Amino acid sequence: MSINSFGHLFRVTTWGESHGPAIGATVDGCPPGVPVDEAMLQHWLDRRKPGQNKYTTQRREPDQVRILSGVFEGVTTGTPVQLMIENTDQRSKDYGDIKDKFRPGHADITYWQKYGIRDYRGGGRSSARETASRVAAGGLARQAIQTLIPGLQITGYMVQMGPHRIDRDRFDLTQVDQNPFWVPDANAAIKWADYLDNLRKSGNSVGAIVEVTASGVPPGLGAPVYGKLDTDLATAMMSINAVKGVEIGEGMSAAMLTGETNADEIYMGNNGEPSYSSNHAGGILGGISTGQDVVVRFAVKPTSSILTPRKTITKSGEETEIITKGRHDPCVGIRAVPVGEAMMACVILDHLLLHRGQVGENRGTVG
Amino acid sequence: MSINSFGHLFRVTTWGESHGPAIGATVDGCPPGVPVDEAMLQHWLDRRKPGQNKYTTQRREPDQVRILSGVFEGVTTGTPVQLMIENTDQRSKDYGDIKDKFRPGHADITYWQKYGIRDYRGGGRSSARETASRVAAGGLARQAIQTLIPGLQITGYMVQMGPHRIDRDRFDLTQVDQNPFWVPDANAAIKWADYLDNLRKSGNSVGAIVEVTASGVPPGLGAPVYGKLDTDLATAMMSINAVKGVEIGEGMSAAMLTGETNADEIYMGNNGEPSYSSNHAGGILGGISTGQDVVVRFAVKPTSSILTPRKTITKSGEETEIITKGRHDPCVGIRAVPVGEAMMACVILDHLLLHRGQVGENRGTVG
Amino acid sequence: MSINSFGHLFRVTTWGESHGPAIGATVDGCPPGVPVDEAMLQHWLDRRKPGQNKYTTQRREPDQVRILSGVFEGVTTGTPVQLMIENTDQRSKDYGDIKDKFRPGHADITYWQKYGIRDYRGGGRSSARETASRVAAGGLARQAIQTLIPGLQITGYMVQMGPHRIDRDRFDLTQVDQNPFWVPDANAAIKWADYLDNLRKSGNSVGAIVEVTASGVPPGLGAPVYGKLDTDLATAMMSINAVKGVEIGEGMSAAMLTGETNADEIYMGNNGEPSYSSNHAGGILGGISTGQDVVVRFAVKPTSSILTPRKTITKSGEETEIITKGRHDPCVGIRAVPVGEAMMACVILDHLLLHRGQVGENRGTVG
Amino acid sequence: MSINSFGHLFRVTTWGESHGPAIGATVDGCPPGVPVDEAMLQHWLDRRKPGQNKYTTQRREPDQVRILSGVFEGVTTGTPVQLMIENTDQRSKDYGDIKDKFRPGHADITYWQKYGIRDYRGGGRSSARETASRVAAGGLARQAIQTLIPGLQITGYMVQMGPHRIDRDRFDLTQVDQNPFWVPDANAAIKWADYLDNLRKSGNSVGAIVEVTASGVPPGLGAPVYGKLDTDLATAMMSINAVKGVEIGEGMSAAMLTGETNADEIYMGNNGEPSYSSNHAGGILGGISTGQDVVVRFAVKPTSSILTPRKTITKSGEETEIITKGRHDPCVGIRAVPVGEAMMACVILDHLLLHRGQVGENRGTVG
Repeated sequence: MSINSFGHLFRVTTWGESHGPAIGATVDGCPPGVPVDEAMLQHWLDRRKPGQNKYTTQRREPDQVRILSGVFEGVTTGTPVQLMIENTDQRSKDYGDIKDKFRPGHADITYWQKYGIRDYRGGGRSSARETASRVAAGGLARQAIQTLIPGLQITGYMVQMGPHRIDRDRFDLTQVDQNPFWVPDANAAIKWADYLDNLRKSGNSVGAIVEVTASGVPPGLGAPVYGKLDTDLATAMMSINAVKGVEIGEGMSAAMLTGETNADEIYMGNNGEPSYSSNHAGGILGGISTGQDVVVRFAVKPTSSILTPRKTITKSGEETEIITKGRHDPCVGIRAVPVGEAMMACVILDHLLLHRGQVGENRGTVG
Repeated sequence: MSINSFGHLFRVTTWGESHGPAIGATVDGCPPGVPVDEAMLQHWLDRRKPGQNKYTTQRREPDQVRILSGVFEGVTTGTPVQLMIENTDQRSKDYGDIKDKFRPGHADITYWQKYGIRDYRGGGRSSARETASRVAAGGLARQAIQTLIPGLQITGYMVQMGPHRIDRDRFDLTQVDQNPFWVPDANAAIKWADYLDNLRKSGNSVGAIVEVTASGVPPGLGAPVYGKLDTDLATAMMSINAVKGVEIGEGMSAAMLTGETNADEIYMGNNGEPSYSSNHAGGILGGISTGQDVVVRFAVKPTSSILTPRKTITKSGEETEIITKGRHDPCVGIRAVPVGEAMMACVILDHLLLHRGQVGENRGTVG
Repeated sequence: MSINSFGHLFRVTTWGESHGPAIGATVDGCPPGVPVDEAMLQHWLDRRKPGQNKYTTQRREPDQVRILSGVFEGVTTGTPVQLMIENTDQRSKDYGDIKDKFRPGHADITYWQKYGIRDYRGGGRSSARETASRVAAGGLARQAIQTLIPGLQITGYMVQMGPHRIDRDRFDLTQVDQNPFWVPDANAAIKWADYLDNLRKSGNSVGAIVEVTASGVPPGLGAPVYGKLDTDLATAMMSINAVKGVEIGEGMSAAMLTGETNADEIYMGNNGEPSYSSNHAGGILGGISTGQDVVVRFAVKPTSSILTPRKTITKSGEETEIITKGRHDPCVGIRAVPVGEAMMACVILDHLLLHRGQVGENRGTVG
Repeated sequence: MSINSFGHLFRVTTWGESHGPAIGATVDGCPPGVPVDEAMLQHWLDRRKPGQNKYTTQRREPDQVRILSGVFEGVTTGTPVQLMIENTDQRSKDYGDIKDKFRPGHADITYWQKYGIRDYRGGGRSSARETASRVAAGGLARQAIQTLIPGLQITGYMVQMGPHRIDRDRFDLTQVDQNPFWVPDANAAIKWADYLDNLRKSGNSVGAIVEVTASGVPPGLGAPVYGKLDTDLATAMMSINAVKGVEIGEGMSAAMLTGETNADEIYMGNNGEPSYSSNHAGGILGGISTGQDVVVRFAVKPTSSILTPRKTITKSGEETEIITKGRHDPCVGIRAVPVGEAMMACVILDHLLLHRGQVGENRGTVG
């Protein structure tokens, strides 16, 4: 029930502030015997790493992850895995302005109002830097999943930036690694580059929508009625910084459908397993996976740290203005893609273990 | 970490199946000294009760709640409160068709695939009937909130049914109790009545969007980074049957905003407290309440139980069709309004207690 | 983390007061497909039932358990199982004396000091009556264990009453059901009967030690370092009313042993599994089961409700005396035997599920 | 529910192996504004540190704690506090013997049987070294307690070593810091030194009993029926390495008392608060603190790492003998004293927060 922890059996607790000595993730409940080393985790961290192109913050940190416990001779031991990332680019600078003024749209004021103290350096605990810890834990979760369900695939990508949506008819997953936006649509990548360049130069920022899918998820994961797979995915995604909405399958658009249209009709597939005519449900019915692709989307709001002056107040209650200089992401949604993938991995692994714990290998078969 | 439980300190476990002897909620962690009796809870259950008009299922049950423990001489004692609702309208009928066929869009198939057994009578545990238990628990949460923050108000209403949205310029909360849809727009109520009547007669169903707000929430509720107020609201709403999307403040539309537009500028209000130019954030920054209205929306998919024949399979894997006769809601979103309110109440109370536990009464003051 | 809940995956929440309408246990996380009906649970409740002989309270209640949910067509469905026991013998009487005075050695005063309110009728929530709920849940746990590890046996018995210990040389488990004390020593049963008769007639009470063993427990249950099997057994037993001490294996006497003596030497058994020369460890090393018998003991203090006048105070702070009339157990340790067994069953099942969840079927083999 | 975590609201997760790069504690839920720095925590670690005299292991490590997060400008921020202790004395040596043979009485075999892999270097996760993390977390808990209840005092000491008990008539807390055994009896200190010297020279080891008291604990801490103060203390102490028994107040001896003797009679004290004639209850009734001293004792078994050859088997199932050379404690009970204090501090703080969360400041008053 720990407020900085996530998951039932595969339990991740992240810790650390943006400009403290280090950040990290304490991972408890990982199955034993999972092959893992620092390079395997680094692979995922490098995808999230800032400063890789002009569209992400110019903060330059190696984000080098160290495994401090729980791994011996190349495999997990079943004991807690401590993943630590040292903060190396703690620029000695004057935080004076942020120290006393609250940035509109930022957690500055609420941390202060809650705790009466906050680490104002780089946003402290509320910094997007925290998500590096999630990506490290997600890398471990992916390794564990591979030992349990080798074919399971988790893929994240952007589907919207500001007013620009991808064209689903041009959807091509092979494009995702070919552009700085993780967008599965080559045309969109070109258009978005122009759009974001202009925004960036004007010191503004913009929101985005990220979609994450998991294919190869076995039917039967999830549980009534608060440990549902979709509930835990909503928890996972909504807990990411700047996320304001989460959708499963049709999501908010489900409101516009009739029952006739929304019904994913069921057939027997060629493989002798149930098959569906469509996937409005996003792979989840009654909180339990159907075996179809699990599809989740989340909206990331624009960074509140912008160059345009905004009205605000100081801690002592004086009205003033603020401009946030610094090294910020014009569209934090970009770097949220690997974070969303990591959270999906943690949720899926957790439910694989939960299902095995309660039910074991026996499931109801069809046909 | 119980899979049928919800909440950190105010912890609700719901139990029971649609056609078993009873359903209920076991509520642990309620503060002592909260005035409550069965009539106070019944008030909220009556709002959710089926059969009140032609737009909801014609199942007729009194949904009478009994308090079996934790209340003595009219107030809570601080020990678990057991709220039980007996199932009285368990119509003796033939479930044969549902027993062997899986309804498309329904949890029939996933329960079977998970557990290898399911109570097929009326949907068993996956029935919307489970939400009556939530409403009972939410009624208790409201009573507790009133003792802690008397002015706090929780209000739910529909903002969309199928393709029809309310007109925000006609928004009028006094209308909510004046129509069968809990819609704060008198014109919409008339239009929706026609629309739903036609759908109902054709044996079809439709989705909806419900909005729930909480005003008077003190700043400082919520906690980084997995016990956030918005994360717990997402959990709460996504766990409700048929919900496919959850939004806080701008929600999915936050993707379309720039940082300039999205910033809720801060002033000093006349009451000496921080005040905001707008509420894109939905009352939550960094997972912690700002003191503004907390605003959450969720989308409810259309009922899968419809009269139109849909293709499906049987447990033995034969392809067939199914028509779901019975007493179903053409728009389950309507009855989701009191359920959403109940979940909001549970989350707010839980975070009031969590905040008091960790921080006590001391908070950072502004001005 | 619920304060009235116990267990990780097999999670039991008990509720109810001694003289309210009912008490019960909400059990979440039970595996599906476990054969169970009310009669199977009643078997265990009948062992704990009061009024069976002159050595237990003369309160007469059928303690009839009802299954309200989670069981369908004779087996568990994997959803929450609600076990309810109605309170039928709520004698209408004057509680005036207990209402205002605090019984020394009883929870009267602490409940008052904590909550500012307490249900004084028969001890309310602090009554030993609460343990009936545990026995019901333990009966369900036993049924689930039988489906997973058919040969696993759980046996409880008394080993000490007041100053009288059993003679371990006369230890004979077949005696346990042959006397009112569940004592595995026929001579002790005779001696204890005399002893307790005298105490009972004088209105006094006495403490006891109960031992519970589980044989056939597979090696590998338990987990470092707070989810240890011995830690969870200590939690389970210490949570029973009136328990003041818990021991595993040698227990407190381990303090007197040297490393030489305490070492349970290891051999290869005839069955190809590791075997031990002794069981000082009580079947647990490093918090994980060895495959030997798991042995736990707990001490139950004497009932505080006695006829001898004791000095006390009233709620308003006046000094006075109290005599507790009523129907009390001269040695509550007797009825604690089935309760200890029930708690052992819950812990073992929980760890069977936890182990399966994290590790699955693969374990390190020896030889 | 994390298996390496402890506590409800003040939640400690320890991590790390004896010979990995580091060990530590991730502490979530600490109140904000608690003054703490590394030196304050080091004070407590130095008490537990090995190699301080000939009666403890000669492993020499500075056990230097670092605070990696959650503290800013000298006070806690309310976010997770990461406490890390680097392992500096990881002697490069041949573990060959322990690697393949299982030490009788040690967790070697059970870790292997559970996980199929174990870090055999120095006991890995099952090493007593893990308790350093607890002492660090306990130091933080003590700081937090001082801000909430300044007069609350926690004191641990040994009361038995092998067959030698302290003389309660000579009990003198000022002696505790004056001898290497933390024993509050000057005569015992002398006698024990001789006794342990002989044991140590012969390569043997011995058990012990540690008592920890907390004075100044307010009445009302703890909660029915699984979140009891005594239950959580039992959990805390039983989770410490090598502990085999836990007692509250009279403990196992409560079995020998009659109700007449066991009743702690109640008076009104001079301070206007309830006062008691004795403290058989150990400061806890019905799981809730009375305001008297909270008294807990636990038995520590002798180290299994001894020079005497013991019979055992290898991983491949061959019967053999083992002698454990190395740097071990002849009586690990000595260094368990600061560990027991730390666990008491964590439990008390956790229940202070839990009580404040559920009940707030209002309590039932007497008089």
